[in-house]
Order: sequence, then structure tokens, then C-alpha cells
Amino acid sequence: MKLTEKFVDKIYQATPDAGAIESAKLGVLDFLTSCYAGKDDQGVHKLRELIQLEGGLEVAPLIGQGLKATPGQSALINGFLAHALDFDDVHVEVRGHPSAVLLPTLLALASTNDVSGKRFLEAYVVGVEVMARIARAVSDQHYEKGWHNTGTIGVLAAALAGGYMLQFSREQLAQALGFATTQSSGLRCHFGTETKPLHAGLAARAAVLSVQLTLVNFNNNKNSFDGKGSYFDIYGVGITEQNSSILLDGWNKEWKITSPGLWFKIYPFCSAAYFGADAALKIGRLPVEEIEEVIITFSNNTDAALIHRNPQTCEEGRFSIEYIVSLILQGKPLVFENFAQKPIDELSQQIISKTVRQNVQEQPHVARYTKVKVTLKNGNTIEESSTTPKGSKENKVTKQELIEKCRSNLKNEEFEETLLNSIFSFDEIKSLSSFLSIL
Amino acid sequence: MKLTEKFVDKIYQATPDAGAIESAKLGVLDFLTSCYAGKDDQGVHKLRELIQLEGGLEVAPLIGQGLKATPGQSALINGFLAHALDFDDVHVEVRGHPSAVLLPTLLALASTNDVSGKRFLEAYVVGVEVMARIARAVSDQHYEKGWHNTGTIGVLAAALAGGYMLQFSREQLAQALGFATTQSSGLRCHFGTETKPLHAGLAARAAVLSVQLTLVNFNNNKNSFDGKGSYFDIYGVGITEQNSSILLDGWNKEWKITSPGLWFKIYPFCSAAYFGADAALKIGRLPVEEIEEVIITFSNNTDAALIHRNPQTCEEGRFSIEYIVSLILQGKPLVFENFAQKPIDELSQQIISKTVRQNVQEQPHVARYTKVKVTLKNGNTIEESSTTPKGSKENKVTKQELIEKCRSNLKNEEFEETLLNSIFSFDEIKSLSSFLSIL
Repeated sequence: MKLTEKFVDKIYQATPDAGAIESAKLGVLDFLTSCYAGKDDQGVHKLRELIQLEGGLEVAPLIGQGLKATPGQSALINGFLAHALDFDDVHVEVRGHPSAVLLPTLLALASTNDVSGKRFLEAYVVGVEVMARIARAVSDQHYEKGWHNTGTIGVLAAALAGGYMLQFSREQLAQALGFATTQSSGLRCHFGTETKPLHAGLAARAAVLSVQLTLVNFNNNKNSFDGKGSYFDIYGVGITEQNSSILLDGWNKEWKITSPGLWFKIYPFCSAAYFGADAALKIGRLPVEEIEEVIITFSNNTDAALIHRNPQTCEEGRFSIEYIVSLILQGKPLVFENFAQKPIDELSQQIISKTVRQNVQEQPHVARYTKVKVTLKNGNTIEESSTTPKGSKENKVTKQELIEKCRSNLKNEEFEETLLNSIFSFDEIKSLSSFLSIL
Repeated sequence: MKLTEKFVDKIYQATPDAGAIESAKLGVLDFLTSCYAGKDDQGVHKLRELIQLEGGLEVAPLIGQGLKATPGQSALINGFLAHALDFDDVHVEVRGHPSAVLLPTLLALASTNDVSGKRFLEAYVVGVEVMARIARAVSDQHYEKGWHNTGTIGVLAAALAGGYMLQFSREQLAQALGFATTQSSGLRCHFGTETKPLHAGLAARAAVLSVQLTLVNFNNNKNSFDGKGSYFDIYGVGITEQNSSILLDGWNKEWKITSPGLWFKIYPFCSAAYFGADAALKIGRLPVEEIEEVIITFSNNTDAALIHRNPQTCEEGRFSIEYIVSLILQGKPLVFENFAQKPIDELSQQIISKTVRQNVQEQPHVARYTKVKVTLKNGNTIEESSTTPKGSKENKVTKQELIEKCRSNLKNEEFEETLLNSIFSFDEIKSLSSFLSIL
């Protein structure tokens, strides 16, 4: 049996447990919260302009827009808006944003197929599982080279999750995977622009197309994980014993959606900055004019996602530890307004210009950390470090905190209650159509 | 000035000459001939099923279908059908199929923008130019790794050609390029299936989206050819002096569409097999039962595209020198019927099982060749070689032969005359809308 066949067989036979289903409900809640928080983003309006020029059947929801669109358009826009504020979940093994790709795909497909709430959640669990496993199997070199896993690997996971939700045969799963492999794209050089969240939407749209092409039995190579020129040859480090075992071993035991679990966000910026932000928050507000130097130290290149050392806009600041630490040292709140499309103020720029970033190669047993050291003009130094910021495995955002995040972003009590009630009884919904109509 | 800026400046300032425009007319003719020849392909019907489920405004032509669709749908389907039979032009420097991506993109964009015939042809010339230059700049390693240049590089060239046609500013060209880089995909492991021609359609659709995103000023990294993690880091061999000069030098002198020029096809299979087919045609028909062995020798891995050594279907046979030579040695014609989606007959399989393929590493001055050597059971050998098959630079398909190819594939005299008249006076058409309505 070939690797692709073995892999799709695991997916075909996947049976997520009750714990995974509960984790999935929290994922749906936080995804929708992030979508509603981003519903008025400028980029959403631009994308809505484009789809108005296309027209099309109005069958699938555009979250928070009071509109419907084609499944592909809905996947594109919902993917974008879930990730627009970088407020949606991440997953450390994925090294990217699973829900922003998976859930728009599943919602789009559930709009034109009869799907139960339980099957939807199971498919989501399978999608996170697959995305984390493929991301580990292509190795960290994939991300470090410059690929954006949310896009490149998201499309594969979402196509497989979609196929699983629609109860595809093994052969159909392999076919959907084939279409996804040949549409895999997304470059990190666009981080800090609207194109980063667009990657989530493009991947979701491509995943929907992969499922649709399979449904009309368009033909392709059904062994895209095997042989010379396979997905792993092009996007990873080839097919090795090690990455085969990452893909195939230990299914139906622990689920990646629960362990290490989705990392939910409480601030709207890149999770790679959460460690440094946590350390800076321990230091707190300082008089700007007394700061001589700020040194920020990362373990093992864990700052790769933070591509802006000298950001020009607050939006770019979502990927700048220098900017985020400058906000904290000034006592400014870590809220949307401070990460909008506008120039960075002068005081922040002053602190950024005094900030130095460095990396230390650590031994494997050393936990991921970021350290912030501030030297004042009087020679005093203050130093703090964090290995367990809010959201991480050791310091998870609780169900109650997610409900609060939802409430503070939706600001519509009646709708919040409807939504929360639906989500917490999601596995009992026989057909999703009425749920889809409230989004 | 950065590389991206310098490159888009060349495009902005491009002024194709009269010779290039005449070459472009032949390209349009052969593209449309290939589309009409492929108009009833099974894959087209599957894609039409998909877009019927989407609906959408009917503004852009689906060639030969008597239907219109959205610009994106039109780009997808026309791209697919141009390349469905592998009967469309190739370009040796592109190492792929320029027109199947460029022209569907330009037709889709011309459907919603007022464009003259001359500007359309100029944009096409620029598209071929850009596609050949980028393909050379990513080096042969790109193709040999397993990427399908038609898709991966086609999307960049088509987005830039589209932007040029719509008279984008330099900044807008850089923006469109950015969207194209982050959508670049397509794997050669799907060769020999319907997904190969789909790559042309997907690239054209992505190019249309790249132009549309630029028109609504969606933001992105406008320097996607520069810096760490740039397009050339990910898809090529980094940015070197050599590939910068390939991109930038010698513009507005000779045009790639004329020299080496588009390679037009007279047989519906991969052009990499044309050398071997030409050699086998010199040998001609032999009694199958007397064949002991067939040895086919390629220079310098020029068989990379011919991925099927032991094809199972006649369609896979489009990428199998073994199958093509077996047809010729049996005296069978090189026509569509023998490359359809059906199993390969027993007699052809017998010859294939006696065929050995080999590669010889040659010195740079040795011209590309394929050699066919047949050993008979009586010990006699027959050997022929070709360096200049029909279609190649040294043995170009003439205008008259292209007109004949058009006539023998369209089989509708009145329409042929209308089409030929339009194409040969294409540069005099003030607005393309009435031309688009006859397709």
C-alpha cells in the first residue's frame, strides 16, 4: 500500500471522541467571535466589491454581512474575515491558523449538502488532526523557507475535512487531496498586509473546489504523496520513515484539537509575539524618556513569523515584537485600534529604534521562551521572561474566557445567547441549514 | 531600485514591434483552433457542471460552448480547453504552455474592460516575454523538481500581461505580481490526467483575480521578487546576478514570441516527444512480431515531461515516448482517437514492454536530440535521430499550415472565414466586444 492510500485510510476510519468534540465546539465559538470582530474590516469590503462583480447563486453565508454567496465566494470571504485581525486560533504543531481555513470550507460545503452538527464537528477535528500532521511531516523547514502553512497546508487539510464530512470513499479522499496538493500556495513575504488573511480564504476556496472536482469525478493523480515529484518532494523534505510515521501513527487516540489543543488569542496579533508580550507585561509601564535600550531574546528562531523589525504601520505591528513591546512599555492597551492601518506614532518609533532583537540556539530540553531586558538611562536593568503566555498549552484560555471574548466582541445580547446555545448543543443539530441562516 | 521595481518598469515601458504583433496573431489563431478542437472534451463538461452550480453574471465567453460566464469561470474553462488535448503551443524557454494561460486571462479581462485588438496583442507579446524570462530565471531546476511551469509561472505572466493590457501603473503591476506569486501552484505529478490542462485554467483564473484585487487596491507586498522568502527563494534558486539579467536585459529588441517563437503543434501530445516521434517517423512502419527491442535515447534529461514509461491509458500516452513510438512503428496515425481516455491495446503494450529509455549527458554545444534504435529478431538494426522536429525553431509550422490546422479542426467554413478575417486584422479592431461575442 502506498503512503497516500495508508493516509486516507486513517482519515476514512477516523472516529473523534467526546473530548475532541467538546474542543471543537470551543473552536467554532472562537472562530465565529473572530469573524464578527473582523466583519467591518476594509478588506472584507474590497472582497465584497469583487464578488458583486461576479454575481452567483446566494446559498452560503457571508458571516456578519447579512448576505449569502456561492460556496466558493463564501469560503474566500469567511476565510479572510476569520483571520483579518489575527485574532483567530493558532496551533503550535500546525504553525498556522487551522480554523480560518477549515471552518469556512466546512460551512460552504454544509450550505449545499445536508450535514448534521455532529458530522460537522467530527470533520473539523479530522481537519485539525490532518493539518498538524502534514505540517509536522513537511518539517519546520517548510515554514522557515517562507511558505505560509495556513495556506499551503490548510488547503490539503480542508479538502480532506470536507471530503470526510461528505462521507467520501477512500478513493475520493485521495482524489480531493490530489486537487489540493496542486493548488497549494501562500508566501510569508506578504505577512503584515491584507494578503496574509487572504491566504486563509484562498485556501478555503481551493479546498471547496477540490471537493467539487471530486464530486464531478474530474481525474487526477490519486497518489500525490508518493513517488518522485510528490507533495513532500516539492514542499517538504521528501518522504522519510519519520514523516510517514508522523502521518500514520497513533490515530483515534489523542486528538490534536485537544492536545496540545487550539491556542486561542486574547490579543489581535501574531502568537509568536505572545511570549515577549507576556514578559513585557510583567515589566509594565516605564517612563519612555528613561529607556536606554530594549533587548528581546528569542529561543531557536521562534521569531520567524515576526517579520517586521521596523514596522511602518500599526497593521505591520501585528508582526513586530519591537512595536508590541513598545506599546506595553508605554502602558498602551493591546487592542484593535493600536493595530490598524495607520502610521506608527513617534513615541513608539523612538522605543523601536532603541530595541535590539536576538536569537539563542538552545538545547532541545529548553522550553520555548522570549526574554525582554530593559536598560534605563540610570544604568538599572529590568528583565522578565515567559514560557507560558495566555493561550499556550500550559495556560489555556478557558471556556468562560471564550464566552467573555464572544460577548465583548459581539455586543448584541440576544444574538450572543442564540449563538452560544447553538454552539454548545451543536452535536445535537440534525441539519445545519437553520444554523447557517443566522450567521 | 529593487529587482521587482526594475522588472515591472521594463513591462511598463514595453513596446512590442510589428513582427511580434504578427507572431501574436498566429498565436491567437492556433489557440482558438486548439480550443475548438477540445470543445467537447469530457473535462469541459465536468467544469461546466461546476459553474452551473455557482451561477454568476454571463459576461465572458466560454469558447465553442455557446455560453457566457463570469470572468473567473471563463478563464478557468478556456484555459482548460485550450490545453485539454495538448494540442496548443509550447515555448522552449517557458518549458510550458504560454497561450493556454495568457489568452484566457486576457479574454476574460477584455470582456469587462474596453480593450482594442492592438493592445490585446501587445499584452499577449508581453505575457510570453515575461513567462519565458521568469522560467529561465527560476532555472531548469524548477521544472525538474516537479513544478508545472504552465501553472506556476503562467499565473505571474498572465497577471502582468493583464495589468499591462489595462494600462496599470508600475505600482499596480508590482501589486498584481504580488498576488500572482502567492497563488503560484501546479505539480507535474498530475501529468497525463485532466488535471494537467486544469493547471492552465487555474492559473488563468488566479491571474484574473490578481488583476481584480489590484483594481480594488487590496494590499500586499509589492516587492515579491526581493528579499528573503521572495518568489525566487521559494520557487527558484534565489536571486542571482544571472537571473536578474535574464529578467532585465535586452527588452524591446527581440521578442520571445518571435525568437525562438511559439512552437505550434501538429500532433496532440507533449512536445518533448516530438523529437522521438520525428525519428520514429523516419523509420516508419515495421512488422510488430519481428521487433526484438526499441532503445530511445534522449540528450540531457529532455524526457522529464514524459512521465509515463508504462502508460495504462491512451491519455497517459500523451506523456509516453514508448507509447508514441509504438503507434508509429505500427503505422497508426497520431490523431486524437489514439490519445483518448481508454486502455492501451495489447499490440502497443507488447512494443512498450520491449522499449528501453535512456539519457545521455551531452556537451553544451550538442543540439537537443532524441534517437530511436530498433533491433529486429533477425539481428538487423535501424536507427534514426531528430534535432529539428516540426514546430521547432528550425522547422516552424507556417502560417498556411496553421490555417489548414484551423480548417481541419473547425469544420465550419463560414465561421472559419469570419474567424480568420478577424484574427488577421486583429490589430485594427477598436473594441473587442463584438469579436468576443462570436467565440
